Amino acid sequence: DKHLKVFTLNSNPGLAEEIAETIGVNLGKCSVTRFSDGEIQINIEESIRGCDIFIIQSTSSPANEHIMELLIMIDALKRASARTINVVIPYYGYARQDRKSRSREPITAKLIANLLETAGADRVITLDLHASQIQGFFDIPVDQLIGVPILANHFEKKNLEDIVIVSPDHGGVVRARKMADRLKAPIAIIDKRRPKPNMSEVMNIVGNIEGKTAIIIDDIIDTAGTMTLAANAMKKNGAKAVYACSTHPVLSGPAIERIQNSEIKELVVTNTIPLPDEKRIDKILQLSVGDLLGKAIVHVFEDRSVSNLFD
Amino acid sequence: DKHLKVFTLNSNPGLAEEIAETIGVNLGKCSVTRFSDGEIQINIEESIRGCDIFIIQSTSSPANEHIMELLIMIDALKRASARTINVVIPYYGYARQDRKSRSREPITAKLIANLLETAGADRVITLDLHASQIQGFFDIPVDQLIGVPILANHFEKKNLEDIVIVSPDHGGVVRARKMADRLKAPIAIIDKRRPKPNMSEVMNIVGNIEGKTAIIIDDIIDTAGTMTLAANAMKKNGAKAVYACSTHPVLSGPAIERIQNSEIKELVVTNTIPLPDEKRIDKILQLSVGDLLGKAIVHVFEDRSVSNLFD
Ligand SMILES: Nc1ncnc2c1ncn2[C@@H]1O[C@H](COP(=O)(O)O)[C@@H](O)[C@H]1O
Ligand SMILES: Nc1ncnc2c1ncn2[C@@H]1O[C@H](COP(=O)(O)O)[C@@H](O)[C@H]1O
Repeated sequence: DKHLKVFTLNSNPGLAEEIAETIGVNLGKCSVTRFSDGEIQINIEESIRGCDIFIIQSTSSPANEHIMELLIMIDALKRASARTINVVIPYYGYARQDRKSRSREPITAKLIANLLETAGADRVITLDLHASQIQGFFDIPVDQLIGVPILANHFEKKNLEDIVIVSPDHGGVVRARKMADRLKAPIAIIDKRRPKPNMSEVMNIVGNIEGKTAIIIDDIIDTAGTMTLAANAMKKNGAKAVYACSTHPVLSGPAIERIQNSEIKELVVTNTIPLPDEKRIDKILQLSVGDLLGKAIVHVFEDRSVSNLFD
Repeated sequence: DKHLKVFTLNSNPGLAEEIAETIGVNLGKCSVTRFSDGEIQINIEESIRGCDIFIIQSTSSPANEHIMELLIMIDALKRASARTINVVIPYYGYARQDRKSRSREPITAKLIANLLETAGADRVITLDLHASQIQGFFDIPVDQLIGVPILANHFEKKNLEDIVIVSPDHGGVVRARKMADRLKAPIAIIDKRRPKPNMSEVMNIVGNIEGKTAIIIDDIIDTAGTMTLAANAMKKNGAKAVYACSTHPVLSGPAIERIQNSEIKELVVTNTIPLPDEKRIDKILQLSVGDLLGKAIVHVFEDRSVSNLFD
């Protein structure tokens, strides 16, 4: 008889609760605290021998703390004879360090993949990796879910007219296309170019936005520089209204202030990363991926593909 | 032609400077900073192709940050074609999580060993591991230096009379014996016992301390509970004066206050962990291991044993 258990660490306990509720289980008993010197102390407080374990942990800020919690938890579960250790990483931190953009840089996204395998992870479930290539950094199965259906669903219900889906850079065009397919809308692309070295960037808009309602989509919204510049460029070039959406609300540094002062009417994000009170402003709407991840866990546990979850 | 390069990360740049000076090199150019969201950004700013690299990093508090810096740096060096990557860890954090003392606990000291090897470390140089067994957690060479000669040397110069070296618990007797050999002194042991479950511990002193100058030695002084209880027990049982020494000054939580209010006349530590200003009190003397580690690095680089460094 197979047993499924879900444990949460400290990055996103609220989401973990929602996931457990979708599945219809209680979260596993476990304390993840600190010794006096700040070292992580983990105690798994129930037997997990022979169980299929799902650990919920975004490697969001503080990324290093959350990564170490995850690795130490995997080690403890392995030594306590878990049958399989499945790591659910709604937001995969360090994903932007996925290649050497200069000499002598690390490829931290690959390092993290290696560390997770070394600790003893058997499978990874994640959402909107910054680059899908990161799946290939692992030698274990990786299920990548996508946030687009959840975000698209929200805009569908709004019944906005004459919309255009905007990618804020070249890297995000595939994502914008997926969103546009769902909303049966055209796309536009912000085509940033530096005409000469040391000249400032020119923002050229490819596609028709005049008089339309623009919905800008990106995977991560971090300092919100890219997103708010794009929004303001939309408005300046004749868009009627500007919405923005993004799966992962990193929202570091000046992000909240920038969003507040921008032409963005509403920013829709998910709860792969929880928002502390100071980031909960009226303009930001947070949708849950708890149901999606809960279903994905059940599919994995029952040895079924997760790909039909996107329909 | 072989080339030696020394790099420091953020845990102990002062010690790294001393080490570089002993060796007669400049520290390698490298910036270890943070992105806006707190993720570590490393840039190695000089070629290291074909070099033998020594990275100086204690995995002291904040341990998780320092461990991740170290792992990411190793990854960057490996990808930049270092010939060998030698990791100098003056204080090896998580060393007290070196066995399962209860069910379903991690063995984090072993996990860290695996992570370092996975990242690409070729050799480890460290000082006074909490348990020497941790050497066996690695499949790469580990050179373990000891702090006893540096600490003993200090007390020798003081010309104290009628001394006794005290181990504050059973685990530290071997270390106390080494110190006693150097100072040609007898030893005593604090033999803590719980006569019955739920009865409070009894501190029994094995060995003669009456009228003597006690020098208590431990590897790590963390919250200073063990050390100050031992010191006060010494005084209560007739010791004339009480000194304390310890290689690694973790000094977390109530440590400084406890030391200040204790019978300890002087606490001698090393700089495997730097002391921030608020921990620099008159009672604490910090000695440098820079010379010892610098010499060890030269020995390793020249393929010579480090064991004669202890004479
Ligand atoms: N946490 C981070 N915050 C901001 N930039 C980052 C971060 N991690 C990596 N990067 C940089 O982001 C760039 C890659 O982003 P992208 O071009 O969007 O894939 C690289 O130049 C990285 O150095
Ligand atoms: N950072 C830490 N601070 C305090 N205690 C710890 C720490 N790490 C591990 N321990 C505990 O210390 C005990 C081992 O210490 P020892 O008996 O001195 O080897 C174990 O029970 C651990 O759970």
